[in-house]
Amino acid sequence: MIPKALQILISELSQLPGIGPRSAERLALHLFLNGKNSSESLGNCLLRLHEEVLFCSICGGLCEVSGCEVCKDESRDSELLCVVERPVDILSIDKSGAFKGRYHVLGGKLSPINGVGPEDLRIAELFDRVRKEAVKEVLIALGMDVESEATVYFLTKRLAALGVKVSRLAQGLPAGASLEFADGLTLERAIENRVPVESE
Amino acid sequence: MIPKALQILISELSQLPGIGPRSAERLALHLFLNGKNSSESLGNCLLRLHEEVLFCSICGGLCEVSGCEVCKDESRDSELLCVVERPVDILSIDKSGAFKGRYHVLGGKLSPINGVGPEDLRIAELFDRVRKEAVKEVLIALGMDVESEATVYFLTKRLAALGVKVSRLAQGLPAGASLEFADGLTLERAIENRVPVESE
Repeated sequence: MIPKALQILISELSQLPGIGPRSAERLALHLFLNGKNSSESLGNCLLRLHEEVLFCSICGGLCEVSGCEVCKDESRDSELLCVVERPVDILSIDKSGAFKGRYHVLGGKLSPINGVGPEDLRIAELFDRVRKEAVKEVLIALGMDVESEATVYFLTKRLAALGVKVSRLAQGLPAGASLEFADGLTLERAIENRVPVESE
Repeated sequence: MIPKALQILISELSQLPGIGPRSAERLALHLFLNGKNSSESLGNCLLRLHEEVLFCSICGGLCEVSGCEVCKDESRDSELLCVVERPVDILSIDKSGAFKGRYHVLGGKLSPINGVGPEDLRIAELFDRVRKEAVKEVLIALGMDVESEATVYFLTKRLAALGVKVSRLAQGLPAGASLEFADGLTLERAIENRVPVESE
């Protein structure tokens, strides 16, 4: 009933995250009905993707073939290094505008249960950079789950031995949150890390 | 910050229906991180799409280059013709399994406000087919909106003049519906079109 090329497109699309079989069908039909130009333009984008985007060999983030914008940026504070799990995390942190140092992508978190040890992550590279780039502070920007905790613990001990200051993201209430919807653990951390308010 | 090829892909993806800028970013990153094979395979699908899928010149539905499966299917009742708005509608109706005739896609609905007249739709082709293919019944499977009503009215008069029986989809409660959530108009139609229940 459905032409084969369309069927293949539907099955390819339904493998994308967050796209079920019904959405895949709708998208595929849209791509067909919207005309040859639009489907070819998306198709060519996809074919070019891996020719034009690379992982930076220094920070591990995404970069152009011509080199990594972040690592080349002289205006960034080279003494400040932010450790993240995935290349995507660099985008989130940079969007916030609150960090002006450089980045280092670990490529995962330590997880003995899943067989992920220090040698599977870009940890040796991290220590190399800390030594060579005269880094003074490492901000570990991982999540708040158990594996992140383990990774923070592992890194902190070894980074401290190299004589750098280690910090991690603050825990507390998210922006715009009301107390009503905060879970117990978040509140506990927010109370532990309470911030003094200065009277003027 | 985001490599250019990835930015272009994100903007292409965010033009698809139901995909906002955040989903587009997530999809683009997934396509990149999932490796060259998967993005190339989707890319090639898209490039092939318009080479391998056509509109059937008879029914107006989607078909292979080799010909339309539905129009060629001798097991279908050629005396029964179902008129739909879009090629997609053929898929919906055929999935239900309740219709075993042939199809005819109008390519739209009559809409004087939007400047869509009979000459903009595949209506002349419909009359031609009714005459040539010795159609006995035309089932008009349009929606329940004002434009569909106008189209049904327009077609019914002219088809009746050709001596064919004209029917349309029944209106009433959708399957699995509870009375609680049915709107007034649906209930009105369901009452008007009530079906006698036979005692055994």
